[in-house]
Amino acid sequence: MRKSEAPVTVIGLGLMGQALAGTFLRNGHPTTVWNRSAGKADQLVAQGAVRAGSARDAVVASPLVIVCVSDYAAVRELLDPLGDVLAGRVLVSLTSGTSEEARETAQWAARQGGAYLDGAIMTGPQGVGTAEALLLYSGPKAAFETHESALRSLGGETTYLGADHGLSSLYDMSMLTLMWSILNGFLHGAALLGTADVPAATFAQAAKKGMLTVADWLSSYADQIDGGEYPALDSTIDTHLAAMEHLIHESVTLGINAELPRFIKALTDRAVAGGRGSDGYAALIEQFRQP
Amino acid sequence: MRKSEAPVTVIGLGLMGQALAGTFLRNGHPTTVWNRSAGKADQLVAQGAVRAGSARDAVVASPLVIVCVSDYAAVRELLDPLGDVLAGRVLVSLTSGTSEEARETAQWAARQGGAYLDGAIMTGPQGVGTAEALLLYSGPKAAFETHESALRSLGGETTYLGADHGLSSLYDMSMLTLMWSILNGFLHGAALLGTADVPAATFAQAAKKGMLTVADWLSSYADQIDGGEYPALDSTIDTHLAAMEHLIHESVTLGINAELPRFIKALTDRAVAGGRGSDGYAALIEQFRQP
Repeated sequence: MRKSEAPVTVIGLGLMGQALAGTFLRNGHPTTVWNRSAGKADQLVAQGAVRAGSARDAVVASPLVIVCVSDYAAVRELLDPLGDVLAGRVLVSLTSGTSEEARETAQWAARQGGAYLDGAIMTGPQGVGTAEALLLYSGPKAAFETHESALRSLGGETTYLGADHGLSSLYDMSMLTLMWSILNGFLHGAALLGTADVPAATFAQAAKKGMLTVADWLSSYADQIDGGEYPALDSTIDTHLAAMEHLIHESVTLGINAELPRFIKALTDRAVAGGRGSDGYAALIEQFRQP
Repeated sequence: MRKSEAPVTVIGLGLMGQALAGTFLRNGHPTTVWNRSAGKADQLVAQGAVRAGSARDAVVASPLVIVCVSDYAAVRELLDPLGDVLAGRVLVSLTSGTSEEARETAQWAARQGGAYLDGAIMTGPQGVGTAEALLLYSGPKAAFETHESALRSLGGETTYLGADHGLSSLYDMSMLTLMWSILNGFLHGAALLGTADVPAATFAQAAKKGMLTVADWLSSYADQIDGGEYPALDSTIDTHLAAMEHLIHESVTLGINAELPRFIKALTDRAVAGGRGSDGYAALIEQFRQP
């Protein structure tokens, strides 16, 4: 163990918390751990972690305190009774929640005299500590920079987003909505092709290629969104709409779920009703911006 | 022009038809063209194409006849009056529609004594003829192989899917449902981040990385779907559901559209109600297979 690394504390030892603490240990950080049910620390202690006797002791042990529990309510329930023990420390929550909760937690931490970074882990526990792991942080830049070396050991793609504490939650949510959308599109496609006995594994190959193509379009879509003008680069929304009708008809005829294409078409119908039929697909951003 | 290449006919000279005919010409195929409004052939004729005087003359000119018009009804309207002129020829329709329409068109072509290939172009007009262009064909393998060289000139990723004429439409539809899903997920994410003044162009960079990660998951999802068992590889459906609730709350709080997360959650709720809460996300295939 390289004793020169900065000490860190990890509170909350679910699968993700264990991965975080294990990664700190492997990278030579003196690591203090605490979990409500103490048994979850056993394996980490065997690897060299220090088991704190209480949440208070865990916080006091390090200038950098990582909390990874189920939600923000659990963060507050855990730390609220500890009073000003956070003073002068940097608290990092890697808990999933909304931007509002992140901003509220930052205000609460400030009242305790501590600095707060809100983070989001864009990988599973197995990915933590790898070169590809993307971890996002938002909050005061100085707090991030002070502990950047330790934080960066958790993932090669560690990124500081900005001072607004809500940013990492918003990125997290944005990546999740994209992820679920991709998975649902894939599952609907697999169900369509399944009616003709095409294995999902065969479709997966084509789907991957298709995804790479669509990934290459995102920058030009983004430029249109940022610019507020949506000239059709290729197909118009009217042309998309005609194909969406085919997709609904196909899904109904084959006896599979038609909710996804109906949802897609309903949004697009509104864009056409709003006069966007001859624009490109990026004009649908207007629909997504409306409650 | 290399005169040794096989003669081809292209009927229907919208942007895509012009791209197809132009690519055949560049690759040395004697190319006959026809369009209802003759003027659309002018540029191709200047490049060396032969303008047929009628749809009948266009079909007679080549053993391989490509039709690229707005829909299958237009294909039939065009070719029905020509009787058995298709006999001994291979008709390829690159028209977007359902698998049912493709299979019906194949039956109709067989009654005319012609072989039929149904195709789908998975790129825009600008992509036609490039190494990356994916074009899909289904129908009798012998017909594909006879004209494989000419067809392959239209795209480096030309793929023969199988004898079932419905396959290329099903792939087309499956790729479209995936494409719209990705774009909608991106637009919803851009709308979320837009509330914190994050440019869509900034999100696009993160979204691309996220897409590559998800693309890598598809094979293991597909294996689960093909095997009919969905053990959670990472998050359980229950865990996803909790994050979906955050996403709805986040979207509502920020005053943007919450329909996409509500749609995602409604599907997932049904999977949980069906006893899949502790399985992985791939178990949602069961929802997509149900009408």
